[in-house]
Amino acid sequence: MTYTFSDRLGNLAPSAIREILKATSQPGIIPFAAGNPAPEAFPVRAVREISARLLAERPVDCLQYGITEGYTPLRLRVRGDLKNRLQIGAGFDDLIVTSGAQQVIDLAAKALCNEGDVVIAESPSFIGALNTFRSYGARLRGVPLQADGLDVDALEEILRTEKNVRFLYTIPNYQNPSGVTMSPEKRRRVYELARQYGVLILEDNPYGELRYEGEALPCIKSFDTDGIVIYAGSFSKILSPGLRVGYVLAPAPLIAKMTVGKQASDVHTPVFNQMIVDEWMRNYDVAAHVKEICGIYTAKRDLMCGGLAGTALRFRRPAGGLFLWCELPEGIGMLDYARRAVERKVAVVPGVAFAVEQSDSINAVRLNFSTPTDEQLKQGVEILRGM
Amino acid sequence: MTYTFSDRLGNLAPSAIREILKATSQPGIIPFAAGNPAPEAFPVRAVREISARLLAERPVDCLQYGITEGYTPLRLRVRGDLKNRLQIGAGFDDLIVTSGAQQVIDLAAKALCNEGDVVIAESPSFIGALNTFRSYGARLRGVPLQADGLDVDALEEILRTEKNVRFLYTIPNYQNPSGVTMSPEKRRRVYELARQYGVLILEDNPYGELRYEGEALPCIKSFDTDGIVIYAGSFSKILSPGLRVGYVLAPAPLIAKMTVGKQASDVHTPVFNQMIVDEWMRNYDVAAHVKEICGIYTAKRDLMCGGLAGTALRFRRPAGGLFLWCELPEGIGMLDYARRAVERKVAVVPGVAFAVEQSDSINAVRLNFSTPTDEQLKQGVEILRGM
Repeated sequence: MTYTFSDRLGNLAPSAIREILKATSQPGIIPFAAGNPAPEAFPVRAVREISARLLAERPVDCLQYGITEGYTPLRLRVRGDLKNRLQIGAGFDDLIVTSGAQQVIDLAAKALCNEGDVVIAESPSFIGALNTFRSYGARLRGVPLQADGLDVDALEEILRTEKNVRFLYTIPNYQNPSGVTMSPEKRRRVYELARQYGVLILEDNPYGELRYEGEALPCIKSFDTDGIVIYAGSFSKILSPGLRVGYVLAPAPLIAKMTVGKQASDVHTPVFNQMIVDEWMRNYDVAAHVKEICGIYTAKRDLMCGGLAGTALRFRRPAGGLFLWCELPEGIGMLDYARRAVERKVAVVPGVAFAVEQSDSINAVRLNFSTPTDEQLKQGVEILRGM
Repeated sequence: MTYTFSDRLGNLAPSAIREILKATSQPGIIPFAAGNPAPEAFPVRAVREISARLLAERPVDCLQYGITEGYTPLRLRVRGDLKNRLQIGAGFDDLIVTSGAQQVIDLAAKALCNEGDVVIAESPSFIGALNTFRSYGARLRGVPLQADGLDVDALEEILRTEKNVRFLYTIPNYQNPSGVTMSPEKRRRVYELARQYGVLILEDNPYGELRYEGEALPCIKSFDTDGIVIYAGSFSKILSPGLRVGYVLAPAPLIAKMTVGKQASDVHTPVFNQMIVDEWMRNYDVAAHVKEICGIYTAKRDLMCGGLAGTALRFRRPAGGLFLWCELPEGIGMLDYARRAVERKVAVVPGVAFAVEQSDSINAVRLNFSTPTDEQLKQGVEILRGM
């Protein structure tokens, strides 16, 4: 039998990163390619206590069908938290729980993009999002990143010349893969441009709480008086990625359509998992936990940055997040560099994986400092120093 | 701001059933509209023990990222189980874990259907599947159901006349909503027709284990020497729907493409949930549990069927599954009947919700006997008798 696939998935390859991860997950490989939380960063005791209590007191609620919008106490709690902590969420907004923030990206594209519609993204950007946009037949346009966020002139040029732009996808805090943080001025300018050109913004903020220095900056969503920003959040980086609990805050008509899309995708996010997150937020000191893991990651970041200083790799020390974006000098190709690193048992991701358009000029590798142990960090950095 | 949605979701309404469920979930309403497992059918003690053990012994595995294909021990265990129990799974097949069987339906359509492609389904059929096919712009063609399964002549007529048929969606065991079981002869004939016309089959088997009488019949997948059958399975009806763990067994090239699609949808199914299912299969007597819940549901089915005998509702007693499909006599309209039932505090689903094509002629209601307590069953039946 010869199988014929849909146009949308026919040409889509598996995420290069996840393939690299599979190839390099055997023991003995130093994992600078992943993006996993550190094993010591999980609130294990809390999850253990919560699970035992939930399954003792309300087992049927944990195991029964739920509603597509999500577990109501969690929805209310997250809305309150976003209001208090980030000053986001207007009267016209609504919030649903999703199966990780990846599903927010999926549902936004599903609800908004017809084949050939344009999605704008920072270049380079998160491959998981780019592949999802591609899976809906969206045409991607990339806006180059600068030290303080995307090039707003380049963004405006695209907005002026492209028809059928549906939204800008942006990660303003500690961007993946670049580590760049968008300045407050640019956040405001990006919002104004989107408003002017009638384009939505998908603001993805998985790393916002992993802030190691500098002040917390306002979300783009906090400017949203016009109902044009879809805000994606996640518990993957502060609680657990394996539980797959994220959420989306957006104007109610968008949420209603995304809910219909979610119903057709997976009915609802597992109830037990949502209840675990809800109890964690309700009964545990989340801020203290975040502070603790920020301490862990600050030390790991400094180990990596300190070790790589003075090498051929050019990077800026990220103020938060999980990644170091290392540009390579002319004469050292990223694919060759990544291959040689793996031969020496260090897995890194060649930057081309994060290209938005084929014409993007990238010669860099992405390193992750949250996954390796301190010992692996020292060893891996030493190996890269010797290359 | 006026929002413009994609063509695929623009016209898709929320599932009528889930809307009815939300409207009728308040206390005091007798739930004949749902499809939930009975509260007493959950293996609560087992899940409690398993969760405690997993979080004590391997907490980081439970909470860390997993791979898109699913938790490897569970994939192997389910493959073995399908081989032993159902004699399905060939050398060319592969299996991945999904976020419920709903996601299998989603991924199959995502991987196979372009806008305007035809999907064939039994008429009436599961609204959750039909809406998913619609969300990919598929054009639905319905094959009328008979007492022993779909009308194979009508199926052949569609296969002969329609271009671009991608697959037949069928629930051979205790079909939702009709309760019909496809005869072994028809299963074979459906397979041969699909082979002859070069069309795939999506065999959805969520209820197969809920068999209350009669012999177990061979899955269509068990005939699959040609690699044309996609088999969707689920733990929702025998363990827990809230955990959202299902799986798909299909030829490896299809599985590879569905895996790419899943990566773009939700990265992976929660690891903790997959581990719970795996431990349950490994250390507990699943067959005994299934036997126990079949006992519960047989009693509930008989309560409902016995109580409704002699009323205007015409139904066949289903040999398994969760639903009773009740046809109404001329002169009683299903929408009016459903409205009057709700006024009397009994929620039922008007059959039109399960229509495949607009021209489908349906005058029936679907009743569910797994969700109500025995007391609710008696009360609800009494109310329907009085209508």
